[in-house]
Amino acid sequence: MDFYSSRINALIEELSRLPGIGRKSAQRMAFHILAMPEAEVERLAGTMVDAKKNVHYCRECFNLTDEEICPICRNEKRDHKVIMVVENTRDLAAYEKTGRYEGVYHVLHGAISPALGIGPNEIRLKELMTRLAGDVKEVIIATNSSLEGETTAMYISKLIKPTGIPVTRIASGVPVGGDLENIDEITLTRALEGRKEL
Amino acid sequence: MDFYSSRINALIEELSRLPGIGRKSAQRMAFHILAMPEAEVERLAGTMVDAKKNVHYCRECFNLTDEEICPICRNEKRDHKVIMVVENTRDLAAYEKTGRYEGVYHVLHGAISPALGIGPNEIRLKELMTRLAGDVKEVIIATNSSLEGETTAMYISKLIKPTGIPVTRIASGVPVGGDLENIDEITLTRALEGRKEL
Repeated sequence: MDFYSSRINALIEELSRLPGIGRKSAQRMAFHILAMPEAEVERLAGTMVDAKKNVHYCRECFNLTDEEICPICRNEKRDHKVIMVVENTRDLAAYEKTGRYEGVYHVLHGAISPALGIGPNEIRLKELMTRLAGDVKEVIIATNSSLEGETTAMYISKLIKPTGIPVTRIASGVPVGGDLENIDEITLTRALEGRKEL
Repeated sequence: MDFYSSRINALIEELSRLPGIGRKSAQRMAFHILAMPEAEVERLAGTMVDAKKNVHYCRECFNLTDEEICPICRNEKRDHKVIMVVENTRDLAAYEKTGRYEGVYHVLHGAISPALGIGPNEIRLKELMTRLAGDVKEVIIATNSSLEGETTAMYISKLIKPTGIPVTRIASGVPVGGDLENIDEITLTRALEGRKEL
């Protein structure tokens, strides 16, 4: 698109790399940004860089946080003896939105996928096992109901069995092949309530 | 969403202000940005600020550019005696993509809208009239076929009539109520070819 000057092209180019942003959306966003007051553009840009520089994994559960321990792990009202294992932070967010889960989390940051060459060592499994040395009364596996999610669930349950800690899996109710983050809160709540021991 | 730390919330908040970006898309974009290498985030942020600081209106046609005169107005191969009047830069981009228009543009940055209180003085009409003092052999009005676009077209044609410069309107073919930027290139080309004098 040589009818735009180089800086506009560069901006459209950068924006179209974001997930779910096609060429046309990127163009629309670029013009919107160019029409924003300069102070607002600087705030948007600054927020990005600031978040990137300061957000890291929670030392406990590997949720994203800008503190050492995330707000969930710091919350003393929650049941720290129940750990829900999720694939990523968006899935954690999906369960938090139900407002019906009172335990803590463990974010794996991925799922076992032989097809993609992702083995147990590529996800935060070792860290989960370390946590289980403490006082834990239940591990709820809430990985997606995809092939990778199910594989991961089976792998984890076998790994934990020898410790004697009860391992549960969220109930079906989550549609097979579905992504947790897109499912409504009632279905997620039902799936939590209907969990059964593996 | 108090389960995110403040910097993540701030980032989601900022992103959800962009056009067409809902809460869920903003969240997805935020996690994507947090997963990007820091250098890439800095480049994205820097590109935004740099574009905002350096992009302004072309002195000739009011297209967005980071130079004094935009690439289209600088292009000597184009016919500078034919001026196409568009509402905004996205509409200019839509016509440029057809590759079939060889004149130059005039970007109004809006359309006359009594309902929104936008009068002739709120858009770049005075600047268009100034350009017409030069050597111009045709003004093509390519405002949208919405109520505002049609009103603007009629207003401009009456304004130009006394100068004796021929004024044309892109043909119907552009669906009524449609936005130029969303129309396919063939329809846009046909509308250009079928233009008729007002």
